[in-house]
Amino acid sequence: MVFTDIATRTYNHNWRLDPIVRSLLDTDFYKLLMLQMIRQLHPQVNATFELINRTRSVRLADIIDEAELRAQLDHARSLRFGKKELIWLAGNSFYGRRQMFSPEFIAWLGEFRLPEYELHRRDGQYELRFHGPWTHTMMWEIPALAIINELRSRAGMKGRGRFELDVLYARAKAKLWEKVERLSALPDLVISDFGTRRRHGFLWQRWCVEALKEGLGERFIGSSNVLLAMDADLEAIGTNAHELPMVYAALADGEEAVASAPYRVLEDWQAHYGGNLLIALPDAFGTASFLRHAPEWVADWTGFRPDSAPPIEGGEQIIRWWQDKGRDPRTKLLIFSDGMDIDSIEATYRHFHGRVRMSFGWGTNLTNDFRGCAPFATDDLDPISLVCKVVEANGRPAVKLSDNPAKATGTPAEIERYLRIFGEAGRQTAEVLV
Amino acid sequence: MVFTDIATRTYNHNWRLDPIVRSLLDTDFYKLLMLQMIRQLHPQVNATFELINRTRSVRLADIIDEAELRAQLDHARSLRFGKKELIWLAGNSFYGRRQMFSPEFIAWLGEFRLPEYELHRRDGQYELRFHGPWTHTMMWEIPALAIINELRSRAGMKGRGRFELDVLYARAKAKLWEKVERLSALPDLVISDFGTRRRHGFLWQRWCVEALKEGLGERFIGSSNVLLAMDADLEAIGTNAHELPMVYAALADGEEAVASAPYRVLEDWQAHYGGNLLIALPDAFGTASFLRHAPEWVADWTGFRPDSAPPIEGGEQIIRWWQDKGRDPRTKLLIFSDGMDIDSIEATYRHFHGRVRMSFGWGTNLTNDFRGCAPFATDDLDPISLVCKVVEANGRPAVKLSDNPAKATGTPAEIERYLRIFGEAGRQTAEVLV
Repeated sequence: MVFTDIATRTYNHNWRLDPIVRSLLDTDFYKLLMLQMIRQLHPQVNATFELINRTRSVRLADIIDEAELRAQLDHARSLRFGKKELIWLAGNSFYGRRQMFSPEFIAWLGEFRLPEYELHRRDGQYELRFHGPWTHTMMWEIPALAIINELRSRAGMKGRGRFELDVLYARAKAKLWEKVERLSALPDLVISDFGTRRRHGFLWQRWCVEALKEGLGERFIGSSNVLLAMDADLEAIGTNAHELPMVYAALADGEEAVASAPYRVLEDWQAHYGGNLLIALPDAFGTASFLRHAPEWVADWTGFRPDSAPPIEGGEQIIRWWQDKGRDPRTKLLIFSDGMDIDSIEATYRHFHGRVRMSFGWGTNLTNDFRGCAPFATDDLDPISLVCKVVEANGRPAVKLSDNPAKATGTPAEIERYLRIFGEAGRQTAEVLV
Repeated sequence: MVFTDIATRTYNHNWRLDPIVRSLLDTDFYKLLMLQMIRQLHPQVNATFELINRTRSVRLADIIDEAELRAQLDHARSLRFGKKELIWLAGNSFYGRRQMFSPEFIAWLGEFRLPEYELHRRDGQYELRFHGPWTHTMMWEIPALAIINELRSRAGMKGRGRFELDVLYARAKAKLWEKVERLSALPDLVISDFGTRRRHGFLWQRWCVEALKEGLGERFIGSSNVLLAMDADLEAIGTNAHELPMVYAALADGEEAVASAPYRVLEDWQAHYGGNLLIALPDAFGTASFLRHAPEWVADWTGFRPDSAPPIEGGEQIIRWWQDKGRDPRTKLLIFSDGMDIDSIEATYRHFHGRVRMSFGWGTNLTNDFRGCAPFATDDLDPISLVCKVVEANGRPAVKLSDNPAKATGTPAEIERYLRIFGEAGRQTAEVLV
């Protein structure tokens, strides 16, 4: 006789909702680091975040049911940090430091909930915006992206047979494991999971993290996903994001203040954090400009996270700058995190090996690479380039120039203004796939 | 909260035995066809079957626990044909024919059980023999092989972690599906599962059959496994095996009778079966000799199953013979079943396409190809060449010469005698991998 657990089966066929985000810790670690600082220094700033689908050809509003999307967003809004989660945040060491988060911040988190959202459909896309205090809207970025990406995955799998899904996941697992085997040939590799926002799904991200842990051992240093880090006793990885210089620049009065905004971010950051958290993100308004005008002390920081220049060129540019400043790059850290995949990780590792410390933040191509995995050809599961960016701060437009003009955000007029301030040196357009 | 079905978990950790063979229908269809004829014509013949591990480097007795082996063999002996199974055998059409099995044979099967076995260890191998009436010992071949192969698989997986096993099966699935995709590019392919005896495991064979069904549709014509055919409403596929000419020759008095034994098998066979079951197995004592001395009427048979010559050479040899006999090969059928895999299937298909009807019986490389699939290198799961052959009939030694001397069985003296009778023409040694 075949035994079927009738309660489980009945539940599986009747649940009201299969929540995508089930914990407020299911977010990227750097959000919490930034949030603690923002709450202290900028509690009154309002910031608007907005969903931007750079892959316009994928008409998300035609693919994802609006009622389902609302149900998931509403479910995320119902979440609170759990008691166990807050105890862990308070008691765990992060980046070798105890009490990274102040008791007062932890207490504030205990009251936190995600703010309202504004959702419309236009031209086959969703317009999804979050208005309100920066301390609240910024926390939507990761869950909003994870929800939309997973709803798209689910839509792409809807109606597929049990066997098809079996082959799909078998091939995705085999594909990832081939990558892990190639990575395991790099003895000094340091790599972490940065794939929360773009993941195929939560359970899949968890599998990917497990695969890196099993296959790479100590070379896999952790996950940007706080929930996975907690559950698997991994390090939570991450530092800071573009939203800091973008908001600082948006709030700045006058061109000089805009030009110095990126460095004021670093000043504030180093007042809060130290050590391996002193990683500068140089490309918000172009890396060349950032380096040229950077104060001397920026060279004392631990490293950089080049996030839009081609990794080898971007890394070389920073190494030259350190050398010009009389620093030894072998003591410095470069974190590569822009659309990395097995080929670019291997090439970058081999190029810089021995010349600089390196770490890789592996995102979309770790947690959402189903290309060619479906047993019958489809591109419904190919990753898209979806971001959720700050677009306004206290009513003023926010801008990102990036080293790659295809990744710039902001109104054309504001982008023009920023280009006049920061210059165009070193920017080059590359296709943004993920 | 995580729900665990406690009863299932407890059962999984405590079962007395996880039976490998759970039904007497879990065997190859041709066994039943042969058995019906043997029972009618040779009910008094005793035949000894014996396990032969051609892959001597794999020391089965060091790998498989003897108590476990005995428990599985004993469990198989406890089986009877079920009521539903007998009704299906009686009521189903096989090869387009109703009542393939006589009511009297079906009634006899209702009383059938596997006879005793004799098991010893020697030099790291198991000596496993089945003595008794041919009508009973012959039914041990498939379950004995399936049991030993699956016990070896289980030993190879013992102690591996949950994640390792997950990657193992994911890669095996991905590997098979790549083969299925390549096969699906062959529009006139006709293929069936012949993998019961060499399978990694029963559940894995079932998955493989499902994969062929999903991926190849009508081009997948069925399975040699009667149980899977019944359960999945597939055609049961198979005709006859070497044991028939081997026993007929062993029982023959005098060289002339030995020489004509293969044709007496065919005479008896065609008195019982017709149509697509008229498939001659020409290689028991060498295909060249078989064809040279074959009576004219053999050319009227539907086709041949070349089973030890290289497929293209073996097929060409038979096509020439048909042409010499004035037959049109395009009306004839060749069934290729000797260690086929994706490359040889493609090559054979392309070579003969349009010149002869073809069908492929895909065995070991369908249901037991785990080479390179384990996440950490091992050859414990690589298939081996294990057979269970008739070695004596009524106390007289049985011999198989084969087109490939590496596949010959029998005592050296008897092999010599058979070679004098049948000659050595066309035999060529090739490594036997599976």
